[in-house]
Amino acid sequence: MDEETKITPWEVTSTAGIDYLKVIREFGCQPIDGALVSRFEKVTGMRAHPWLRRGIFFSHKDLNLVLDAYEKGQEIYLYTGRGPSSESLHLGHMVPFMFTKYLQTALDAIVVIQMTDDEKYYFKEGLALEEANRLTHLNAKDIIACGFNPQKTWIFSNLETVGGTFYRNIVKIMKHTSGNLIHGIYGLDLGNNIGQLSWPCFQAAPAFSTSFANLFGDRHVMCLVPMAIDQYPYFRMAREIAHKLDYIKPATIQSRFLPSLEQAHDKASSTGAKEVIFMNDTQEALTKKIREKAFSGGGMTKQEHIEKGANLAVDVPYHYLLYFLDDDQELERIAREYKAGRMMTSEVKKKTIEVIWNVLREHQEGRRLVTDEIVDLFMDPNRDFDHSRHPREKMAHNEEEQHLGFHFDPYFTK
Amino acid sequence: MDEETKITPWEVTSTAGIDYLKVIREFGCQPIDGALVSRFEKVTGMRAHPWLRRGIFFSHKDLNLVLDAYEKGQEIYLYTGRGPSSESLHLGHMVPFMFTKYLQTALDAIVVIQMTDDEKYYFKEGLALEEANRLTHLNAKDIIACGFNPQKTWIFSNLETVGGTFYRNIVKIMKHTSGNLIHGIYGLDLGNNIGQLSWPCFQAAPAFSTSFANLFGDRHVMCLVPMAIDQYPYFRMAREIAHKLDYIKPATIQSRFLPSLEQAHDKASSTGAKEVIFMNDTQEALTKKIREKAFSGGGMTKQEHIEKGANLAVDVPYHYLLYFLDDDQELERIAREYKAGRMMTSEVKKKTIEVIWNVLREHQEGRRLVTDEIVDLFMDPNRDFDHSRHPREKMAHNEEEQHLGFHFDPYFTK
Repeated sequence: MDEETKITPWEVTSTAGIDYLKVIREFGCQPIDGALVSRFEKVTGMRAHPWLRRGIFFSHKDLNLVLDAYEKGQEIYLYTGRGPSSESLHLGHMVPFMFTKYLQTALDAIVVIQMTDDEKYYFKEGLALEEANRLTHLNAKDIIACGFNPQKTWIFSNLETVGGTFYRNIVKIMKHTSGNLIHGIYGLDLGNNIGQLSWPCFQAAPAFSTSFANLFGDRHVMCLVPMAIDQYPYFRMAREIAHKLDYIKPATIQSRFLPSLEQAHDKASSTGAKEVIFMNDTQEALTKKIREKAFSGGGMTKQEHIEKGANLAVDVPYHYLLYFLDDDQELERIAREYKAGRMMTSEVKKKTIEVIWNVLREHQEGRRLVTDEIVDLFMDPNRDFDHSRHPREKMAHNEEEQHLGFHFDPYFTK
Repeated sequence: MDEETKITPWEVTSTAGIDYLKVIREFGCQPIDGALVSRFEKVTGMRAHPWLRRGIFFSHKDLNLVLDAYEKGQEIYLYTGRGPSSESLHLGHMVPFMFTKYLQTALDAIVVIQMTDDEKYYFKEGLALEEANRLTHLNAKDIIACGFNPQKTWIFSNLETVGGTFYRNIVKIMKHTSGNLIHGIYGLDLGNNIGQLSWPCFQAAPAFSTSFANLFGDRHVMCLVPMAIDQYPYFRMAREIAHKLDYIKPATIQSRFLPSLEQAHDKASSTGAKEVIFMNDTQEALTKKIREKAFSGGGMTKQEHIEKGANLAVDVPYHYLLYFLDDDQELERIAREYKAGRMMTSEVKKKTIEVIWNVLREHQEGRRLVTDEIVDLFMDPNRDFDHSRHPREKMAHNEEEQHLGFHFDPYFTK
């Protein structure tokens, strides 16, 4: 990283804005280009998610191998997770889950979701173990509300699940992970507690199917891990260890960060330091947050705005539209008009409030239906999971369509 | 420690002989004196084990509190363990188990025995995880053959058991154990693997009754840990952490090391570097080992022996009698005669072979009866354990009898 940018699973800071191309280079992963997005559509028969088309999921490792496996009819599974640290998830937390739900449909795959109540206890000062476990069950409701397929999804708490084949894989990973490797990747050292030092081994284990005899018996099934880019170091490590254990290397797909309201270069966070949009915010709260807190790239005065237009690269409301406004034409129109100074910040914010409220309202309606019994069902390890692949009407893939992938310049800076 | 003595759970070396009084001071534990041994007899109503009377179990922490609890009718439990690294246990391995079996009878207590297959995988080069787990079940037979009460004993493999309440306690311990603490106590650092660095937390957890909901529900029950002195650092750490977690500090009782055949100052070991007596040795193998390998403190020539007598402090056959010859009068007679040069090394060795073969033969007969089904029974976590205390005919305690405890000088050096 450059000196101004620091990306670890626990901290993302950047003074000058994150240079994602540089991150890709330093992490040793690959950009997702238009050709890969096109292949994804062709193989899965589903239109690419806007976040794939718009370069929000911008980087990967072995996504092509996942598509190879899918094409051959081989099983693959998806793994994502959540550190339960707040009562409600915020909008940034939802990005990997919404995308994983999309991939579950596209690839017709089993999804495992690790609730890292142990991790949060190690890393969050003042959080009791029992409270971390309580938040696990609460947060599961937000996750389930994304619409995961219950026959193909297992949500599990580490505190409740570590043991058996899962613990055996953790042990194998711990033996092959030196303290120096942990120090090199995460910057942790002997000043940290042992839970923190050993934590990455617990996070890596679910990327190997042999961890879960309840799901896969002793079959070696390839894993694809969708995540924000700050989680990649775990899976860079998992890939190294897979090699030593003769396991299949997990494939990964990484997103940029949903910005905080104040700063388009930041990562949204629920630690309280920055203003974020929670999934249980009311329409009023949302409106107030976007109106008052969302950083604008528009001119300081109306006159200046009309003359110079908006700087889309630092404009937070526009970033949120880039994530959550599905209509490509409408998005492009707004970008063009706003950048040219023909559309005012107040109008863009109004549109953003409308779009985000739609996301929140739908989520809140869905979440209300998620009872404790449904959470118990999703967390039950010992039931029949559906490993079959169901025939799906394939969309007609348009060879002509240009998918811009990583090289897409959504800010029209050139 | 002095420069010549190094005692860690993985390594015991001493050039000049271990100064146990110094070890006690450095480890911050207490000597077991005659008064404590007398109280043990009075409270439990059982004659003190020869290893208590002869200062072989020479040190403790809070043994008095255990006796207080026993006296008040409160439950206590015993915890010991084994790292499964060889097909058969050797005589030194048996010492804590034989003594724990005695304590189980004396205190009428539940015993938990941790088989640390995960630890051995971390620390023993070239040992496969599956092999460590296989040795667990094999070694359990040697342990069961000591005569543990099946209604009051649970033997468990870490690989099969870590999880649930046990994992929750491990997590709590890991959070409260810094890498620097691990480094300070065990000398491990970032050059070690994460399994090794985190290992002491897994070893400490069984000393807290809340680890085992299957045995104790959520009751806080005091634990007594019998062990050789090299294991004490784990429980020094466990006591520190107990304080932070508001758990009952585990009490401990520590033995000296059974010497290797070549060196009365060494610790017996199955690593292959030193000759040891395995529990499955034949009478011929045992005879050959003691005749040819057991270091003698007798004179170099018959003449010299008659003139100067034997140096009991370095005589290995005599040390073995000290452990395994129950008859106090006979032991004293041998010590006196041998020291005075009136008894020859060959005679002492003959007696030692007879006494040890008796131990081995009885063990081998008992072990033959231990079927796989009996092992499964002892390792079953979910059965009714017997927590009741059964009335026992108390022996008449002789207030006059002198128990020499730690200050006993079995070598007659003064």
